[in-house]
Amino acid sequence: MKLMRIGEPGKEIPCVVHNNIYYSIASLTPDVDHHFWMERGPERVAEALSSSLLPEISTDGARIGAPIARPSSVFCIGMNYAAHAAESGSEPPTVPILFHKAPNTVVGPNDNVAIPRGSSKTDWEVELGVVISKRTSYLDYREQAGESIAGFVTVNDLSEREFQLETSGGQWSKGKSSAGFCPVGPVLVTPDEFDPSDARLRSWVNGEPRQDSTTADMIFSVHEIIFNLSQYLVLEPGDLICTGTPEGVALSGRFPYLRVGDVVEVEIDGLGRQRQHFTPSHP
Amino acid sequence: MKLMRIGEPGKEIPCVVHNNIYYSIASLTPDVDHHFWMERGPERVAEALSSSLLPEISTDGARIGAPIARPSSVFCIGMNYAAHAAESGSEPPTVPILFHKAPNTVVGPNDNVAIPRGSSKTDWEVELGVVISKRTSYLDYREQAGESIAGFVTVNDLSEREFQLETSGGQWSKGKSSAGFCPVGPVLVTPDEFDPSDARLRSWVNGEPRQDSTTADMIFSVHEIIFNLSQYLVLEPGDLICTGTPEGVALSGRFPYLRVGDVVEVEIDGLGRQRQHFTPSHP
Repeated sequence: MKLMRIGEPGKEIPCVVHNNIYYSIASLTPDVDHHFWMERGPERVAEALSSSLLPEISTDGARIGAPIARPSSVFCIGMNYAAHAAESGSEPPTVPILFHKAPNTVVGPNDNVAIPRGSSKTDWEVELGVVISKRTSYLDYREQAGESIAGFVTVNDLSEREFQLETSGGQWSKGKSSAGFCPVGPVLVTPDEFDPSDARLRSWVNGEPRQDSTTADMIFSVHEIIFNLSQYLVLEPGDLICTGTPEGVALSGRFPYLRVGDVVEVEIDGLGRQRQHFTPSHP
Repeated sequence: MKLMRIGEPGKEIPCVVHNNIYYSIASLTPDVDHHFWMERGPERVAEALSSSLLPEISTDGARIGAPIARPSSVFCIGMNYAAHAAESGSEPPTVPILFHKAPNTVVGPNDNVAIPRGSSKTDWEVELGVVISKRTSYLDYREQAGESIAGFVTVNDLSEREFQLETSGGQWSKGKSSAGFCPVGPVLVTPDEFDPSDARLRSWVNGEPRQDSTTADMIFSVHEIIFNLSQYLVLEPGDLICTGTPEGVALSGRFPYLRVGDVVEVEIDGLGRQRQHFTPSHP
């Protein structure tokens, strides 16, 4: 199942995409939020689809929102690809490294993003995002983690490296939470239709390739990450976990940082492509 | 003005405390949340109070909830007292250090707290908490920060030091977000009735004193912190900022870490005292 949210910010209509037709699911749920996941949302959508109860909607020219409502938490796993750890000057981690993005950074996949004021090191990071389906705490086995997955999304974990590494005192969150720094989508794909174990993920700047790797290279798998986090905190339905980025970011020194006018695209095969224009941060 | 939330978890009734009498404000707002701050909440409460429109409520034996609904973000400032930085083995920071607690850690001031599974280093941290009143981004002057303050609260920024420092890869959030790790309250006091520049803050374990300092020793003031964060992210109404803890925690090596059966109290003069029993984390 493929879920999307279509419309202006704060007014997105939740919908399901089936055979390239968009059907509104607004009669079933006000939003793709924690209630939706807690109350058998996908099952109810499937039932309504098979009974032809859902109205088609036109999406011509409409904005695509993030496919999920604002999460309770956006958890991020750092340095989860060995080659990216190396280009960042770090050893591969022996445990999943957790940091946060502020949840109000979540925006649509093609929304403009402002270069933050004072930024000279805005960077891209294509990542596999995992959306949580239920309250999850103290899993006993890694194999249980699958039951906690609502679906998968493309994420651009935008980062300002000076804020993250130089004016931060060593804690990364300060460079991860500028306005618009978490484009999500375009689509959420449920676990029955997406295999996270070997998905190609790529990024481009102004059409030139940057990252091109596979989730098979992740140091800690999706299941391992959910299992690990569940030992330290309580995951909530609708929470988003960004599972780390592969090599090919500007921090490596191989590419320039982003500037006003640049266009970034990020894509995960099966989860869709994003495209962001970078704009000035207005005074 | 002093605001509280009284009742069982998820069913708290918002109220105002005036001359030691508790008045429900449920007719004015469903909760002390971002809508309340955005829609002139305190002004409307003051008007209703002066018109004797609010019903008294009995609080005998009732649970005290956190005085705020679950925030969009819980921001924390690390090492903001020089003596605590020293006892932690760090130099005093030259910039505010930001990390996050997951927002679902916010609980009532006297709720039991479970020692997390596998924990041997659960630690207390009394902190001045600041609640944000409006969307705040890119402040031009430190002096503007006062307009963004909804009120002040006592916070216990509970921490698991092994999770934070040893199994974290160096990012602190993993040791800050176990269930129940953010007791808040008992009361929110609006800025007209509380001076954050020199407030005594203390903690005790099983009645023995631990921390005893003043917010005058903060390296970065409340205004400086809000100004600084506003350059990197967008603060939302209802967000909570924990402004750092003074010396006297177990991490110093001077005191044992918390164990099942311990009782922690933390207090800020003018903002009230908390008391938590530490319990096992049930399998």
